[in-house]
Amino acid sequence: NASNGSDAAVNIFSRMSRLATKHGAINLAQGFPDFACDGALIECAAAALRGENNQYAPVAGLPSLRAAIAEKILSEMDVHVDPDQEITVTAGAAQAIFTAIGCMLCPGDEVLILEPAYDSYIPAILAKGGVPRIVTLKAPDFRINWDEVEHAVTPRTRVLIINSPNNPSGRVLNLTEINALALIAEKHDLLIISDEVYEHIVFDGKQHHSFLQHAKLRSRSFVVFSFGKTLHVTGWKIGYCVAPPAYTRKLQALHQYAIFSVNAPLQAGIAAYLGCHRGAWSLSDLFLPKRDRLRAGLVENGFTLCETQGTYFQLAEFSNVRNDLTDFEFADWLTISGGVACIPLSSFYSGMDNGKYVRFCFAKKDETIDIALSRLRRL
Amino acid sequence: NASNGSDAAVNIFSRMSRLATKHGAINLAQGFPDFACDGALIECAAAALRGENNQYAPVAGLPSLRAAIAEKILSEMDVHVDPDQEITVTAGAAQAIFTAIGCMLCPGDEVLILEPAYDSYIPAILAKGGVPRIVTLKAPDFRINWDEVEHAVTPRTRVLIINSPNNPSGRVLNLTEINALALIAEKHDLLIISDEVYEHIVFDGKQHHSFLQHAKLRSRSFVVFSFGKTLHVTGWKIGYCVAPPAYTRKLQALHQYAIFSVNAPLQAGIAAYLGCHRGAWSLSDLFLPKRDRLRAGLVENGFTLCETQGTYFQLAEFSNVRNDLTDFEFADWLTISGGVACIPLSSFYSGMDNGKYVRFCFAKKDETIDIALSRLRRL
Ligand SMILES: CSCCC(=O)C(=O)O
Ligand SMILES: CSCCC(=O)C(=O)O
Repeated sequence: NASNGSDAAVNIFSRMSRLATKHGAINLAQGFPDFACDGALIECAAAALRGENNQYAPVAGLPSLRAAIAEKILSEMDVHVDPDQEITVTAGAAQAIFTAIGCMLCPGDEVLILEPAYDSYIPAILAKGGVPRIVTLKAPDFRINWDEVEHAVTPRTRVLIINSPNNPSGRVLNLTEINALALIAEKHDLLIISDEVYEHIVFDGKQHHSFLQHAKLRSRSFVVFSFGKTLHVTGWKIGYCVAPPAYTRKLQALHQYAIFSVNAPLQAGIAAYLGCHRGAWSLSDLFLPKRDRLRAGLVENGFTLCETQGTYFQLAEFSNVRNDLTDFEFADWLTISGGVACIPLSSFYSGMDNGKYVRFCFAKKDETIDIALSRLRRL
Repeated sequence: NASNGSDAAVNIFSRMSRLATKHGAINLAQGFPDFACDGALIECAAAALRGENNQYAPVAGLPSLRAAIAEKILSEMDVHVDPDQEITVTAGAAQAIFTAIGCMLCPGDEVLILEPAYDSYIPAILAKGGVPRIVTLKAPDFRINWDEVEHAVTPRTRVLIINSPNNPSGRVLNLTEINALALIAEKHDLLIISDEVYEHIVFDGKQHHSFLQHAKLRSRSFVVFSFGKTLHVTGWKIGYCVAPPAYTRKLQALHQYAIFSVNAPLQAGIAAYLGCHRGAWSLSDLFLPKRDRLRAGLVENGFTLCETQGTYFQLAEFSNVRNDLTDFEFADWLTISGGVACIPLSSFYSGMDNGKYVRFCFAKKDETIDIALSRLRRL
């Protein structure tokens, strides 16, 4: 997190991207694709720009996009979601999470987080005067001890944030785990923020179980998704949050003053695109060969791999490459001297001692991965 | 504000727009143009979409857009702004204001507001546990008593929010007033949030004085602008905030977790457009005839007008039309029975008794204004 970096005000993704640019490194740090999205999506957005989509969208999002989202969820998850009462289009998933925390938390409320965790969760909690309560999961397997999770709950605990498929660990919660979580949430009446932005990227027969598909969790969850991750347009900053009507009203009551609404032409473009691209997203087929390409090269160059069940991130242990550096030092060194940028695992923890792991993003052209691997070979 | 509306969770602009749609009313309520923006701007954005602009922009905004903003400010205001240290691109002006408040306020801090005020200011303050301190300006002239302003300052007062050209009053601060404000701000060491989204819409020889042009104010101000208002694309949700480097760092430290960054392709489109459309914005020439068209029709139909020195809003007193209704009731009635939607002035106040005024938006095609006026004639 921010406090671990050398410049506390700049988050790790921005810092490593800048460092990569400065030193001409291949950027396997920040999580975004370096290949183009579907050209049809671009043309849908260009057509939307030329149409009547350049003034304020409604607070909840364009009706056409909310309808398309409900349709997507129905066809993929067999779950009915009310587009008028349960969906909010947001300026990306991070804005959804920030606003969900903002609308539900009172100062002093505690929020349970499993670390490693995405770096925006804790700042969002602190911004509301909330108190993060952290359960630490350890590399390489990041196993969750549910008793430990339950022990971390206090009478002040109000929210639990969970992310599966998990960035950076690559872990995907199985049904047994989800049921264990549901029991705790029910028993202690916790709200859930379920960050499911990598819903379409799972490997090796693993399955993503959305909290929307779990009746007991759904009724207490803000479930957050990302068109940026799913459609390869992270720069469009369009995500969405599905939550029960009462929570959605609270979310939108804050959203309308925090931002009012999300950019309309790109919403309209996505709505039109979803209209003619129904059904399954073959993101796992796209990313599996990339994952395995990167994995093979990392092993060849002395890294020890963690399992990657989902997401487009690969964790790797580097002590056989250099044993004298912390993960922060190693990430800097690899970027500056090795020409390959990555993210230190410790940046996803509040504590400091998290072993010698770094995260590589494989949402890249094969040739990008190959250049990165050839640079590792030269080390 | 929200507490005045019949549905506390939905803000007045959304509520009146919905009511207008439901009853087929001409929407002179919510402030957005119903005419197209420059086609060249659309083509710049479409070209940006087809280029390399679909992944995350930097937290501060695209360098090309920040450079174009600095250039715009230099050529229009003769003020140098550092694009790397003083500019943050935001998802609209409201998001800039929400984030500026979020990054500067501690719970219990007081924020001075002159009412009538835009409806997002108070929710933004309350979201941080801040305390709004309100100085009330009265229709029809909204004169500011600076002694009263200074009296409202307490040791806990940290921020003053000001908006000129003012929505909804149409008032533009003159230099004498700005100097009075600067004296108070200096004496009590207040931060300023200066909402200047209507900077380019001033009439009758009035001049907009940006706080960026006032050395003493600039050093303590977050100055907020809107491409939505200036380029007639309110749905693009792109604005920017100019602040001294130390404040900009604080703003971006929060911004990066609240939203990370703003949609990249539309940023790139605006940057390209500004590159070939330097110089003065003739928005006053565009809006003056519309203002006067609306004013003439309102007078003809029994309304009494307030002065409109700037913005694209006109306040009108309606007691000669119907004296039996509050402004909230009148706005509903005019929308439902008269087929013309407007905004009650009271929605810009925390208190309730603000006379019989409603606000009309004249950022509309002449024919839209004409249809609205013909409907008023039929009343
Ligand atoms: C918003 S920058 C971070 C992108 C991302 O999801 C990641 O790298 O983990
Ligand atoms: C964001 S909806 C409100 C638009 C506006 O600026 C106004 O009507 O005052």
